[in-house]
Amino acid sequence: MKLLEERILQDGRILPGNILKVDSFLNHQIDPDLFMAMGQDFYDHFKDKEITKILTLEVSGIGIAFAAATYFKVPVLFAKKSLSLTLTEDVYASKVTSYTKKKTFDIRVQKNFLSDQDKVLIIDDFLAMGEALGGLIDLCQQANAQVQGIGIAIEKSFQPGGNKYRELGYDVYSQAMIEKLEDGKVTFVKQ
Amino acid sequence: MKLLEERILQDGRILPGNILKVDSFLNHQIDPDLFMAMGQDFYDHFKDKEITKILTLEVSGIGIAFAAATYFKVPVLFAKKSLSLTLTEDVYASKVTSYTKKKTFDIRVQKNFLSDQDKVLIIDDFLAMGEALGGLIDLCQQANAQVQGIGIAIEKSFQPGGNKYRELGYDVYSQAMIEKLEDGKVTFVKQ
Repeated sequence: MKLLEERILQDGRILPGNILKVDSFLNHQIDPDLFMAMGQDFYDHFKDKEITKILTLEVSGIGIAFAAATYFKVPVLFAKKSLSLTLTEDVYASKVTSYTKKKTFDIRVQKNFLSDQDKVLIIDDFLAMGEALGGLIDLCQQANAQVQGIGIAIEKSFQPGGNKYRELGYDVYSQAMIEKLEDGKVTFVKQ
Repeated sequence: MKLLEERILQDGRILPGNILKVDSFLNHQIDPDLFMAMGQDFYDHFKDKEITKILTLEVSGIGIAFAAATYFKVPVLFAKKSLSLTLTEDVYASKVTSYTKKKTFDIRVQKNFLSDQDKVLIIDDFLAMGEALGGLIDLCQQANAQVQGIGIAIEKSFQPGGNKYRELGYDVYSQAMIEKLEDGKVTFVKQ
């Protein structure tokens, strides 16, 4: 998606260790016009998949998933990372390791919000190792919900997550695919 | 706001201890049409305040703040609750105690995203004791940003947060004001 690639080139920064930072428009501050355009783009790609629910993971996925949901006209369900007093009922749970945060956490959704009647679009901000994505797919499988597609804002194509799930047969659509992060420069996969 | 009150009556549940649970449409699963209507309602109330930025707190505030931002056409900034490897720069920080989660945590925004040029609308899902709100106002004060208004989805009017900040002179607008939660029944303040 040209608009997102251009924004990454314009406002993204690369920290030491080749970490891409997109906090000014994507995961600390959010540009609503950009997100709505991304939501429309996800809709254009997945509109024929009869989506009944969008599943994402707190925190950074929520804004993008919500923008998409305004076009699909279906609920967003966000998996939670921490126990809270009001999430006391039966849950589907999975484990996810975050390489950025260097820890493993549980992700959970309440069972009554995901069922074998659901055709799910999974949306997340980043795809690199595919850890979070694996957890979200696991939640769907536990509920016997069908994963109809996977929409990602930024895929680090030099890491294995995206291809792993494409090879498993999933329709993984990434709006910006980064081929390499080197010497403070972002190069995108030619699409 | 009638639409939100009706939804709370229809789909909200009251857990033992008179905890209101709105997970099916507000803070675990999100109804995008409802949120867009809430965003429009916040816009109608605060549209003359020359808002330059919407500030909220992860996690549950993000969807509502984003919906509002699509009408105001300004960025959403969400304060973060946990340190991450990509939030390494200078931050404004404050402390917030969550009575629901029974813990105190730090909230942070990067300094470069909040300045003395900003006219801020603070948006959050719940207002009860006013702890989270106090932290968000503190962040604005540290940045010398002006708090132009406070938009809340659900205020528990029987707790002191709302009136505390109204008495301090803030324009606190709550879309649903709960007068009491008793015997599994929600009663709203007559508006």
